Amino acid sequence: MRKIAAIIGGGVIGGGWLARFLLNGWDVNLYDPDPESKRKIKAVLENARHALPMLYDVNLPVEGSLNFCESIKDAVEGATWIQESVPERLDLKHKVFNEIINHASSDAVIGSSTSGFKPSELQEGSIRPDSIIVTHPFNPVYLLPLIELVPSPANSVTIIDKAKEILTSLGMFPLHVRKEIDAHIADRFLEAVWREGLWLIKDGIATTQEIDDAIRYGFGLRWAQMGLFETYRIAGGEEGMAHFISQFGPCLQWPWTKLMDVPELTDELIEQIANQSDAQSGHKSIRELERLRDNNLIAILRSLKNENTAAGALINNHEKTIKPELPSEYDNPITTINRVIPNDWTDYNGHMNESRYGQIFSDAADIIMKTVGANEAYIASGLSYFTVDIAIKFLAETHAGSNIHVKSYILQGEGKKMRLFHQMYGEDGTLMATGEQMLIHVSLETRRACEPRKDVLTNLERIAAAHSKIEDPRGGKQ
Amino acid sequence: MRKIAAIIGGGVIGGGWLARFLLNGWDVNLYDPDPESKRKIKAVLENARHALPMLYDVNLPVEGSLNFCESIKDAVEGATWIQESVPERLDLKHKVFNEIINHASSDAVIGSSTSGFKPSELQEGSIRPDSIIVTHPFNPVYLLPLIELVPSPANSVTIIDKAKEILTSLGMFPLHVRKEIDAHIADRFLEAVWREGLWLIKDGIATTQEIDDAIRYGFGLRWAQMGLFETYRIAGGEEGMAHFISQFGPCLQWPWTKLMDVPELTDELIEQIANQSDAQSGHKSIRELERLRDNNLIAILRSLKNENTAAGALINNHEKTIKPELPSEYDNPITTINRVIPNDWTDYNGHMNESRYGQIFSDAADIIMKTVGANEAYIASGLSYFTVDIAIKFLAETHAGSNIHVKSYILQGEGKKMRLFHQMYGEDGTLMATGEQMLIHVSLETRRACEPRKDVLTNLERIAAAHSKIEDPRGGKQ
Repeated sequence: MRKIAAIIGGGVIGGGWLARFLLNGWDVNLYDPDPESKRKIKAVLENARHALPMLYDVNLPVEGSLNFCESIKDAVEGATWIQESVPERLDLKHKVFNEIINHASSDAVIGSSTSGFKPSELQEGSIRPDSIIVTHPFNPVYLLPLIELVPSPANSVTIIDKAKEILTSLGMFPLHVRKEIDAHIADRFLEAVWREGLWLIKDGIATTQEIDDAIRYGFGLRWAQMGLFETYRIAGGEEGMAHFISQFGPCLQWPWTKLMDVPELTDELIEQIANQSDAQSGHKSIRELERLRDNNLIAILRSLKNENTAAGALINNHEKTIKPELPSEYDNPITTINRVIPNDWTDYNGHMNESRYGQIFSDAADIIMKTVGANEAYIASGLSYFTVDIAIKFLAETHAGSNIHVKSYILQGEGKKMRLFHQMYGEDGTLMATGEQMLIHVSLETRRACEPRKDVLTNLERIAAAHSKIEDPRGGKQ
Repeated sequence: MRKIAAIIGGGVIGGGWLARFLLNGWDVNLYDPDPESKRKIKAVLENARHALPMLYDVNLPVEGSLNFCESIKDAVEGATWIQESVPERLDLKHKVFNEIINHASSDAVIGSSTSGFKPSELQEGSIRPDSIIVTHPFNPVYLLPLIELVPSPANSVTIIDKAKEILTSLGMFPLHVRKEIDAHIADRFLEAVWREGLWLIKDGIATTQEIDDAIRYGFGLRWAQMGLFETYRIAGGEEGMAHFISQFGPCLQWPWTKLMDVPELTDELIEQIANQSDAQSGHKSIRELERLRDNNLIAILRSLKNENTAAGALINNHEKTIKPELPSEYDNPITTINRVIPNDWTDYNGHMNESRYGQIFSDAADIIMKTVGANEAYIASGLSYFTVDIAIKFLAETHAGSNIHVKSYILQGEGKKMRLFHQMYGEDGTLMATGEQMLIHVSLETRRACEPRKDVLTNLERIAAAHSKIEDPRGGKQ
């Protein structure tokens, strides 16, 4: 059965939610009375379609269908998840929730993107408070995994668990905020930092550029992977966290008393900030800045993915749930790879680095290994295949965002030997590269060649026999 | 002439400075009266030697020599840079500065790692205030580029410029803080965030783990590359920064009035935080956490390096200054590559990914291209070489942190053709892989094969002729 998400309010945040659902295979109904809504959604979707597929080393599910609806009623009927992202006015939100609840399925989750209101405030006067829960995302919603999931005592465990499950299935990280509080958790930090930033600018200490440099060349790099307390734990050394606090806590307290006042947002201060921001970033359009941000985020997230840590571990876990089935048809060449080229695979000239052709063929060989039964459990049992040599022909260039697929042939599969031939194709069917690869079966203990397990060898021989009946893909070059 | 840095105080921060200088080829004199100092420095150096070389795609300069000194006098004599990292007590720092100035060269820069004191406070009562300047680093000092460079009015432009030049030559980013202020810039943000964190824990809203998750899965990822204001500029959309502030500024102001108080660091609160931190990270030793942090930082920094943006652009600029000269000896195989394997090149099993052998050989071909004159200017003029095919033999595995080098032969260099043969060796001289690579000279305009420029062809033919006299590295397999 198709899963339907209803998006109520299609600004930057609502649009980000919409993209997250759509690109994860959900159908999406959008309601937004703004006549500009289609144009705005198109812009967010273009960014998301560029960015999100690059996070993964497998293809995302086929995109769902997007429907623009004329009313809340039309949007929410049949929806499993309803996400409210209308302006931050409590009276407006109450009106929207009442309308939603009049037409929504009784077991639908109604998430609110509010950054400030507590769920109990949102639930006030509702006939079904249990359905309404805060699910506060972070921009860009299609890339950043954090969702602050804030229930009130009126929410049941059932709805909380359901919300967690769905968010996780979208590759997000639902952080269960156990006590409701104004501005939840993350925005309290953002407010504190924002206030300090205003003071520094107002007092002429630093410009927006200098503040951003102080963040991105320093603690921003720490926080992208460990956060605050684990970082400080390390600073405390072997003597532990209590030592850190007693040593540095009082230091940190010194200037506090001077930082308590809130700077008034005068026209003058706003103009000062706007001018500094223009000087810093005004040479780039918002669209360019969005792309720069997204490419950076993908690169960072993919680097953490390779380390299987922090936000990268979340992506790996999500990827496991969307990995395609192993090939089941062998009589033709096997489609081993079907994926998007990520931006961290490209060179300064925008083309895919030569070496990544080799990586794609090496990944294709992994799929062949799994297909014949030499899977993770097999490797854990101490047996595997090692690549002995590969010969790659480069026929056409490709670039970030391109979809490519690989057809693989087992040219030889007997005893310890497995010889593969891979063809990499572009979206339009252009043959972009070929790779002929020799693998030898080894014992991981002795590091020496040995015969595969019997079932693996049988599978290998069967497919090799089938492929021997196809025309040799190397043409006359055997 | 050897450059000497004196490190006064060898804790985590002083040790990080020491490693930065040493690994950038400076000789380092350390003075620290702590009898444990040698052991502590060894631990920091081990981490730094593991981490810093991986940031770069060329080898760092040969390490300088490290000397443990018995006195400040012995340490500072002849030093170009003197870094003070003693405990945060103003009287102690004054005493140390006086002793330094008694023995230091009059044009040495005396940087202070203080996180709280203003330079004018440090300079009080000094006979040479101009020499003393704040150069506040961030842990781990050997990886994070930010240095807050804070002068007082007593500092001359000469000393400020000299400090900037030296810090930049170490791969750091000196952020010139134009007005001195308690806690400089970055630590004011850290204080604000720390205070909010204490409240959230004290009030039972969130644990250390939950706070860290709120940071590293959300805004931490934004801040690692853009900082605060550029991120918000994007949120403001085409309507600009003033629009963002008028829309979101007041929102952000709402809860402020509740966040003004400073939580008292009672024993109870300290214990609460320490216990939560143990639950979060206690299963890992500090050493393991340091390695995890460093590997994550390297991976993130290298991902930004590949995008040539944010902190990655700094590394690329620094790398240009330490790039080795092009080879000048041709009669033997040319040593094209000499580098460390970074951790983002390894698979889950810790071995270098197959495809990276191809990358190393492709990088080797780049050096050969430059050596024959097909350099960046040549490519900008519309001519280049494209790889047509490569055949790689995998002979041995390698892993992150290993030093490898490549010897390259020009097997054929005539007309449009350049055929190369590369041998990749491990530190112990083991042959780990070979690659035979065919490149064709092309016009980047027509994308078709064409003859190289005459001087390039002449160089190519000359080296190919010299290499034809060496024994064929492929053995009998030609």
